[in-house]
Amino acid sequence: MKFSGVSAFPITPMNEKGVDQAGFERLIKRLVKAGVNSIGVEGSTGNYPYLTHDERVETAHAAVSCATGTPVIASIGSFRTREVLSLADQLQSVGIGALLLPIVSYHGLGEEEVFSMFKSVSQNVSVPVIIYDSPILSRFVFSDALYAKICALPHISSIKVPSGWPSGNEAVQRIQRLAKRLPSTTVIGASGDNTLSEGVKAGAKIWYSEWGGLFPHRAKSLMQASVTGDEDQIARLSEQFAPFWKVSHKYGGSIRPIAAAASILGLTGSDNLPLPLQGVSEEDRTILEQAIARHGMN
Amino acid sequence: MKFSGVSAFPITPMNEKGVDQAGFERLIKRLVKAGVNSIGVEGSTGNYPYLTHDERVETAHAAVSCATGTPVIASIGSFRTREVLSLADQLQSVGIGALLLPIVSYHGLGEEEVFSMFKSVSQNVSVPVIIYDSPILSRFVFSDALYAKICALPHISSIKVPSGWPSGNEAVQRIQRLAKRLPSTTVIGASGDNTLSEGVKAGAKIWYSEWGGLFPHRAKSLMQASVTGDEDQIARLSEQFAPFWKVSHKYGGSIRPIAAAASILGLTGSDNLPLPLQGVSEEDRTILEQAIARHGMN
Repeated sequence: MKFSGVSAFPITPMNEKGVDQAGFERLIKRLVKAGVNSIGVEGSTGNYPYLTHDERVETAHAAVSCATGTPVIASIGSFRTREVLSLADQLQSVGIGALLLPIVSYHGLGEEEVFSMFKSVSQNVSVPVIIYDSPILSRFVFSDALYAKICALPHISSIKVPSGWPSGNEAVQRIQRLAKRLPSTTVIGASGDNTLSEGVKAGAKIWYSEWGGLFPHRAKSLMQASVTGDEDQIARLSEQFAPFWKVSHKYGGSIRPIAAAASILGLTGSDNLPLPLQGVSEEDRTILEQAIARHGMN
Repeated sequence: MKFSGVSAFPITPMNEKGVDQAGFERLIKRLVKAGVNSIGVEGSTGNYPYLTHDERVETAHAAVSCATGTPVIASIGSFRTREVLSLADQLQSVGIGALLLPIVSYHGLGEEEVFSMFKSVSQNVSVPVIIYDSPILSRFVFSDALYAKICALPHISSIKVPSGWPSGNEAVQRIQRLAKRLPSTTVIGASGDNTLSEGVKAGAKIWYSEWGGLFPHRAKSLMQASVTGDEDQIARLSEQFAPFWKVSHKYGGSIRPIAAAASILGLTGSDNLPLPLQGVSEEDRTILEQAIARHGMN
């Protein structure tokens, strides 16, 4: 697959009864129709840690079937290397085009432990692997040197650089630094929404986008404006996205607001999160409803 | 079960081939023989997140069989409430005497979400439940008010208060505060090793002990000295434990040093951790070997 443009990460609607397969397929088909460059299923937004092994394989399979040619990325994250390798095998066999490897740690991991996991994966796959760096969720901090060491392994093709970490500015500076340091075969990806245009300016070629999994048209426009440097358009679109980013910030992440917005759009039922996760408050749901209506977000 | 004395938390020796059942049973029988008050399997030291659902149930079953009457505690921690409840059911059915509920979070959880999970568990169990508070591993911080609210639920019987968090002193002060605030039916447990005696002085009645899972005799002596306030004995024993605490600190936790020490004692093979976790360095292994030999740790 080619790493560029908008890689849209939809939620996996689910509740205590299981995965809402119909809702999930609706989300995938909608992204294909909108023409996103790739679809990232079972990422953090796709709630992969809350799915069983079998659910992860089945959901990935459904995504590939519905994507009709649009490349599908899926996470192989797990506490255990054994499970990471097993998922890599099975997800490749259902047609996943690239594997996203986040660090899932219980006992904190050292650099050598993380490198060894990437090395094992690298030796056992035939599709591209993306380093998913998410220091807050994983409690692991990648150094630039570790990035470089992992990117020298076969199949390691892209990095999802964390946005806003440790600050918005430093995240952008890091992309700039990496774009110079890493081999040109490594595609640097931005993950932040509100710092996307700066990230693209600094050298990011792909946007791993959470809200893009729900508002693919708007995300494509923002990526396009960022690539061409159309500042007016960036400002206009950022203003439209702002209420969603604000509610996300309030909840310490986008999963709850995106799940609420998916149900507001009628794409899933309103009971679409796995316990213990609960939805947003009625007040915030109203804010999301109004923001969707005001700008016809899609 | 009665919540008092030393609750010893052994490792679950395992590697890429699976759980070392023989080694695990050896560890359990040794704790029973040493006369610990209870045994906590599949806690953080028991690496529960690295086991499958089936491995957790089988391992708990083996522990109960080997414990021959000594109460066995097991963790039901999981990202998902669905799995927490399923484990609670199955672990009770194999004879587990109390359930340890840690917060395992991917997306950060709010107080209401955590309370609801405890409430669901409380409504679905017949054995005591222990609140396992471990802010660094779980990225969730319990307030005193939330402790009180959860402890008012049926079956919630004890709290494993985190040691040294946010500092050694504050952890001890917290135990003191909780001992006054919580109903006398809630048994406050200390989890730290090096602040144990202060914790007991402040009101902790049970020691949820990591190193006690490997050195049960020494742990019993330290608990005894703490209960009687025998300062000389506390100082002597603390000096013997010091090298182990020091190596634990270096690795950001005890799991790797305890696993190394278990193999030094010949209780398990040396390949006893699940990847991506790797063992201690040769240098630290030598330090552990010497410390075990010097004081005949057992």
